[in-house]
Order: sequence, then C-alpha cells, then structure tokens
Amino acid sequence: MSIIVEKYGGTSVGSIERINAVAEKVSKSYAAGDQMVIVVSAMSGETNRLLEMAKEINPHLPAREADVLVSTGEQVTIALLCMALIKRGLQARSYTGGQVRIETDTSHGRARIRNIDDSRIRRDLDEGKIIVVAGYQGVDNEGNITTLGRGGSDVSAVALAAALKALECRIYTDVDGVYTADPRIVPEARRMDEVTFEEMLELSSLGAKVLQIRSVEFAGKYKVPLRVLSSFEDGPGTLISYEVKRNMERAVIAGIAHNADEAKLTITGVPDHPGVAHTILGRIAKKGINVDMIIQNVAADKTTDFTFTVPRTDYENAKTLLKKVSTELAARGVTGDNTIAKVSVVGVGMRSHTGVADLMFATLAQEGINIRMISTSEIKVSVIIDDKYTELAVRALHKAFELDQKK
Amino acid sequence: MSIIVEKYGGTSVGSIERINAVAEKVSKSYAAGDQMVIVVSAMSGETNRLLEMAKEINPHLPAREADVLVSTGEQVTIALLCMALIKRGLQARSYTGGQVRIETDTSHGRARIRNIDDSRIRRDLDEGKIIVVAGYQGVDNEGNITTLGRGGSDVSAVALAAALKALECRIYTDVDGVYTADPRIVPEARRMDEVTFEEMLELSSLGAKVLQIRSVEFAGKYKVPLRVLSSFEDGPGTLISYEVKRNMERAVIAGIAHNADEAKLTITGVPDHPGVAHTILGRIAKKGINVDMIIQNVAADKTTDFTFTVPRTDYENAKTLLKKVSTELAARGVTGDNTIAKVSVVGVGMRSHTGVADLMFATLAQEGINIRMISTSEIKVSVIIDDKYTELAVRALHKAFELDQKK
Repeated sequence: MSIIVEKYGGTSVGSIERINAVAEKVSKSYAAGDQMVIVVSAMSGETNRLLEMAKEINPHLPAREADVLVSTGEQVTIALLCMALIKRGLQARSYTGGQVRIETDTSHGRARIRNIDDSRIRRDLDEGKIIVVAGYQGVDNEGNITTLGRGGSDVSAVALAAALKALECRIYTDVDGVYTADPRIVPEARRMDEVTFEEMLELSSLGAKVLQIRSVEFAGKYKVPLRVLSSFEDGPGTLISYEVKRNMERAVIAGIAHNADEAKLTITGVPDHPGVAHTILGRIAKKGINVDMIIQNVAADKTTDFTFTVPRTDYENAKTLLKKVSTELAARGVTGDNTIAKVSVVGVGMRSHTGVADLMFATLAQEGINIRMISTSEIKVSVIIDDKYTELAVRALHKAFELDQKK
Repeated sequence: MSIIVEKYGGTSVGSIERINAVAEKVSKSYAAGDQMVIVVSAMSGETNRLLEMAKEINPHLPAREADVLVSTGEQVTIALLCMALIKRGLQARSYTGGQVRIETDTSHGRARIRNIDDSRIRRDLDEGKIIVVAGYQGVDNEGNITTLGRGGSDVSAVALAAALKALECRIYTDVDGVYTADPRIVPEARRMDEVTFEEMLELSSLGAKVLQIRSVEFAGKYKVPLRVLSSFEDGPGTLISYEVKRNMERAVIAGIAHNADEAKLTITGVPDHPGVAHTILGRIAKKGINVDMIIQNVAADKTTDFTFTVPRTDYENAKTLLKKVSTELAARGVTGDNTIAKVSVVGVGMRSHTGVADLMFATLAQEGINIRMISTSEIKVSVIIDDKYTELAVRALHKAFELDQKK
C-alpha cells in the first residue's frame, strides 16, 4: 500500500460544509486503497480572528505566545475533520504538530523543520487509521509550540510526505492546477498536466501564486512528487515532476509569469571600485528588505549605474536609505520607479532551444512595449516593463509562444 | 519566596477587558513578592461555540477528538493572558496541560490527574517568570490530549498547588466568597472569612455552588489551602482551612445550603430480605443516575419502604426503571415527587453541640413547613421539603441560627 499525503488549505476547510466535502474526498481516496495522511490549515478567517484579539491586548504580539495562540486554529480543524471522517465510519486520528512530533528550530513565527518522528503515524496507518495532522506548526526541542510562517501548511505536508516516503503529496487549493499564464489575464491559458520542479520554482517565485516557493524548494530537496489540485472540483491537477520527459512535442516554454508587486531603484554615477555592490545591498539587506533583480553596467567615465528591484511596499524605505548611501559613496544620485511590472517566460526547453529571448523581445516591440530591464537565467527570461502594459504583454507572449495550443 | 496558584474561570477571562483586569490583579500579586502560577479556563462561551460546530459535523462527538477540539479554548486564553502580562513589563510564559506536563488517565472528557511534572515550571519560576497554565486539560501517557470534565480548571489549579506545595490556591470566581446562605435568598447572608474543609465539602455538595466538590476533595487530600474570591472586586474572600480553631465564639452552624434540583422516588411494600437495597440501587446506578439521599424504614408487615433522591433531570427515567424493579420484586408500587427541595444546616460545631436538629425542626414547624425526609451526618442535618418553601425555610433557618450576626 502506498502512502498519500493530502493538504487542504484554509478556504478548503473554511466552513462545516467544506469540512464535510473534504471528508468525502478523503474517504474516496482511502477507498481506493491508499494509506492517507491529511494536513489541514486553520479555517479561513480563524487566524485573523485570533490575531485581532491578540493585537488588542498587546500590539507587539510576543512571538512565543503568538504561536501558542494561532496554533489553536489548525487544532480546531484536525478535530472537526476527524469527527467528519468518523461519522463516515472511518477510523481517524488527529495529531497536533507537537504530537507527531514535528521538531523545528526555535524561530517563532517562521520556524524551520528539523526532524519528523513518523513512528506513531506509521503505527496508526498500519492499523488502518486515517491520520489528520495540524499544518503550519511544530515544537522546538523543549516542546515550545512554533509556527512555520507563510505557506507553512504546505511545508508541513511536503515534509511529512518526505519523512513517510509518500507516493505523492497533493496540495488542494482553490485553483485546479498550474496554468500557462494567469487565466484572469489570458482566457486561453491552459492547465499544465505536468511541470518540472525547476519551472515551478521560477513560476511560483515570479508570481504564479499557486504554491509557496518554500514548499516547492522543500519538495525538490527530497524529490517529493507534488500535485496541485482543486478542492472544489474533481480533476487531475498539475504534477510537479523531477524528470524532464524527452518529448519532441514538448513546448519550449512552460508558462508566462508576471509580478506587479515590485519597484525598481537605481543609484547612478557610483565610483566604480570593488565592494560597491556589497556596500549598497548590505545596507538594504540589514533592513530586512528582499532584493529581487540586480543589474549593474559599467559606464565610460569609471562610474557605474546600479539597479535593483524590491517589493513595492518597501519602496519608500529603500529609497530613503539609498539616498544616504548615495551621499556616502559620492554617487550622482538616486532614481526610482514604483509603477513597473516583471514579466517572465519560463521553460526548461529553453536550455536546448535558441531564440526564446529574441521572440520575447520582438513580441513586446511589436506591441510598442518598452523594456526597462532584462535579466536571464538558464530556464527563464525576465523583463521589467511599465506596469500598465502587464496584461497586454502577458497575452501577447502567451500567443507568440503558442501556449494556447494543446501540445 | 512562596508560590501562589491563582485560578480564573471563564467569566473572569471572558473578554479582552476582563483578561486585562486579570493581568492587573496578577501583576499586583507578583509585585507583593510571590511566585505566581495562574490557571485559566476558556473564555466564557468559547467551549460552547466549539462544541456547536462539532455537533453539526458529528452529533456523537467522538471523545478523543472532542478533547482535541475544546482544549484549544484554554490554549487561547493562556496566550492572551501572557501577552497582557508581557505588555505590563513582566516575564510570562504559557503552558498547555501537555506542556506542563499534567498526566492523566485516558478517560476522555472526564480524565483524572495521575501525575504532574513540575520541573519546568519550577525552573521558570526561579527565573522570575509568571507561569500561565491551561486549566481543564492534560495528556495521557501516550500524549493524547484529555480534559478533566466539569470543574476541571479548579482541579488543575488545586493539583498544581499540591505539586508545587503552594502557600495558597486562590480560586477567582464571580462571587466574593462562601456565604452563610445564598445571598439571593437571604439578603442578610454574610461572607465567611473561613470555613473548614469538611463544611465546604457539605456546602458545595448541597448546592452552594461556589466550588466544584471534586476540587474541594482534591484540595483536602493534599491539604491545599484554598481561598475563594472575586475576580471582579477586591476582598479577602473565604479561606478553606483544615484546622478547626477552638474559638468559643465560633458559630455552631457555618451555613445553610439548599438544592432544588432533586426529585424523590419511593418504592413501597418491598418484601424485606437481604439484598433488596442492592437490587434497587444497583439498577439505578447502572443507568448512570446519581443517588443522593437514601432512606429505608422497616414496616410492621415484613415489608419495607425504600426512598431515595435523584437529580430532577433523571426523575422520569429513574421512575420508569423503578416500576420494572417493583414488579420484579413483587413490591406494592412506586411513588415519586419532583417538586421537592433539600435544605441543610452545616457546621463542624454540631459535633460538640446538641440541639441543632431540634432547633431546625422547630423553626420549620413554626413556619408551617412539613418535613418529608430527614438525613443526618456528623456535621449536617438535611431535610426534604416541598420546593415552594425553599426560600422561606432558608431565611427562617438563617435567622434562627443567628447567622446574620457577626461572630
């Protein structure tokens, strides 16, 4: 018998009705003969309800106690889902993160999983029980409750799948798979049956927000076969695989990603000597601001222009900081733009095909869209454009790379 | 430094405002120089909210999962109270029952405490931390979450006080102490500064519902000094002590208790031979019905009348059952009355004073109240009367025993 790990997020368990629907899905999978481990999030809205109370008492949200508080959200869901399964004549047993036990470091609110003791779960599975585990949470080596931060329930599911050597880890969400582009922008976007791990990594970090990048990275580390599918309708979803099938028919490009949550900053006329990049980015990093794209070009006059992108919410802070750095470095000045978007084409096929970047640039030119920055990796080409052109660019590229045509 | 255990019930922590008020109280006690361990219940209404959801999913409420569910209620409170204490510049640390660890048997929903590991709490106390523990809950020896049933948070507090050899266990509630009678009935009723453990045991089992009898028994077993006081106003409350002070001035009677939640049943004309009581009460006990008073008198014709009281909610069930037993025993028949009340006078002084029962009976006679049953113990006299006379009886007895006069 194979072990299947299934994860249902907050929306999927957001009401009594939805919990019953999940119980139906799980009992079908169980009837198919697999051993089932279910990971659930807090009912949607519950974590916020708890945090609102906490903020009213202490806006600083002491980290250890915040974890004690919010971890009750998933604990409620595991109990209710087990009750729904038991109602259907199944044997079900709930586990909190601490009961499993999922051991983490001590970083409250953003803990990393260190070890999973799967002995109790295996014993229960062998007795025919369906196991329901609270996602998002663990305990440190002293038994203090920790939470894993954003996307933590996905990480819990992937980590359990890795520990249990599960056949598949199914992430149920409110979309029915990974698409060639955002279907809200490109109506012709197609659900991919399969996407490679590396493509998924680029797609999720670039804004195709189906899976948190952290869980995809975790899955890649342990080669956990990951499937994204809808908890609201039946369907095969999208399988994230680790082998590229040598299929002649395979598209060069897997999909188009976009992200309009960034802003760009440029420090111009920086005297060009070793250590400049570190001086600039080190200061930004110290403020906890994530830098995404980085571009540097040496100019003729022995100075350099240094450009990078940051989350749009950090734009003003980063700009203020950069002005100080500019003065210190005797640079010419600071410019910035928070009305930009990043659009990327992603695909492992790019490795063996030429002309991808050129087709991308030609397509954007044809639509009159000016490219502000370019950055490439082995399996993607990203450009920064004015954000008002985002939808136009994504649609044009989707068509140009023939992603609307069934391969 | 002495250790003080304080317990705050659901009403006392029923809102953000109330939790802040508790934090104020606790910080005052801490400032007085004691080491503080706080035990809290779920915010009032929370347990019901959770159970309502559960019942909608599975009316049978699977016991193990019900405990996983409702135990989140106290977990929310410990986190919020710690946040409120930290806000006031104090070091505070929360513990779930499992984290302490409070080990119980495996009886979900009505578990009994077996052992408390106080090592982590002692270490934290020595570091100056205020400890906040989730009441009502523990774990069995396999780490499954259990709950202690009705009055469980009081039991948690008393058990922790016993384990930590606390100087005092303070039970904060919505009344400011134990009264000589129910103040809603007797406006002149006085708060007692002190009551003996045995008196408290009789008073709580007889209907003075300040403390659950289970926690009083537990306190008695380990001689934990217990103090009942109000979480809403300042005051010394009532101390439950283990030594009777040989004070000449001490009242013979401590208080008047009443209980109008009972019903009485009589099986008449039972052939009188050994084993009859067991036959009757054994059948009642098997149905899980608690019997309180039991009275048997042998009649002249070699038959006996057998009377007992049961909770009023069990009256109809018990009556139906008793009719079957009556037929089997060839008894004359079954009579019953569910409009009765029990009124008791309680006091350790009774041991050395005569005339208590007589004064009680005389007082009731003077008011024209007929006595239906009488039962006595070393420190109480209980009578069953028509429930419409309850208030009249309590008021008359309170006056007759001069309980309204400051001793």
